[in-house]
Amino acid sequence: MKIGVLGSGMVGSSIAGKLVSLGHEVKMGSRSATNEKAVAWVKSAGKGASQGTFADAAAFGEIVFNCTAGAGSLDALKMAGAQNLRGKVLVDVANPLDFSHGMPATLFISNDDSLAERIQAALPETRVVKALNTVNANVMVNPGRVPGETDIFVCGNDAGAKAQVTRILREEFGWKNVIDLGDLTAARGTESYLHLWLRLMGALKTADFNVKVVH
Amino acid sequence: MKIGVLGSGMVGSSIAGKLVSLGHEVKMGSRSATNEKAVAWVKSAGKGASQGTFADAAAFGEIVFNCTAGAGSLDALKMAGAQNLRGKVLVDVANPLDFSHGMPATLFISNDDSLAERIQAALPETRVVKALNTVNANVMVNPGRVPGETDIFVCGNDAGAKAQVTRILREEFGWKNVIDLGDLTAARGTESYLHLWLRLMGALKTADFNVKVVH
Repeated sequence: MKIGVLGSGMVGSSIAGKLVSLGHEVKMGSRSATNEKAVAWVKSAGKGASQGTFADAAAFGEIVFNCTAGAGSLDALKMAGAQNLRGKVLVDVANPLDFSHGMPATLFISNDDSLAERIQAALPETRVVKALNTVNANVMVNPGRVPGETDIFVCGNDAGAKAQVTRILREEFGWKNVIDLGDLTAARGTESYLHLWLRLMGALKTADFNVKVVH
Repeated sequence: MKIGVLGSGMVGSSIAGKLVSLGHEVKMGSRSATNEKAVAWVKSAGKGASQGTFADAAAFGEIVFNCTAGAGSLDALKMAGAQNLRGKVLVDVANPLDFSHGMPATLFISNDDSLAERIQAALPETRVVKALNTVNANVMVNPGRVPGETDIFVCGNDAGAKAQVTRILREEFGWKNVIDLGDLTAARGTESYLHLWLRLMGALKTADFNVKVVH
């Protein structure tokens, strides 16, 4: 499958690397087609890996992952181009973290809105699914880093898109428990959870953790 | 032990009832000393149970639980009186839920502030500990309603107060895993978690659930 991954940071490298290792063709998109981190990633990832601009990656992918930093996501997606994302599933992994007031970070969108909803509003013909933003980059593609079977969440307005992302989470990334939280407004829940996630990281002194919802 | 419980709703009744059943003397405080729900609770709870105004309950308790609805908490605590709460531990169980814009609720304080911090600011000589606000009223005092051993959180600025609340959570309420998230600003985390909690309640179709943090 051809997949576009927007962002060359830890999240982008982690997801793009996992997808290449599974045999997919992955184009990593950055602001510049010659982004050093993306070029380095392509060299290390090997067969199936390529890089380009945000627009190149968006046009390339049958499905696209938004792994850009939350503060830059809307700009990056504008550069990616609505026409390159039309009709496609966009998996939004970003969090609207604001580090400008020190740590722990606050959110620059929250409470009665979410980054995912802003992205959906900016790209009305794209099917946005929020997923994976509640765990760190390593755990996203390797749930076994956390003992036992913990949970990952999806939400979005298009049932078919959620089903496709759920299949990838289960069969490719190894998430056995995928909880569908409903429509895209539920991204307010998974994004706001970052407030708790950051405190838990501080208390546990590790980012390799996750929650299991028990009922 | 003499304990004040502010609020006569589900959370107040649940916590006050549990504490009476454990042999404590509990005064339930309401806006009026003759609040019908409080009077009914006292009749059903039996020996050790009494009711009065917010001020009566605050003066009575060696430790006080804020179980009022979040939207009314600051007013209720003003009526309780700073002098009646001076030097005492106040366990803040409330959530700043705003139902005025429909469901799911939003928060009327969030992101860079929390209800617990507002309460602490209003009562600088009281030792506020945020706890129990991440589970429903029944689970608060009966963690066994959720299978396995799930987690409950505490945060606050006074280590001794947190230790006292942690002891109550463990030994009286039966919470085996109490996670200390740090100072009271961590209440931003546990209060913001309500956004996710409400979506989980919708997805799971039950309020009897909780999370286990795995690492």
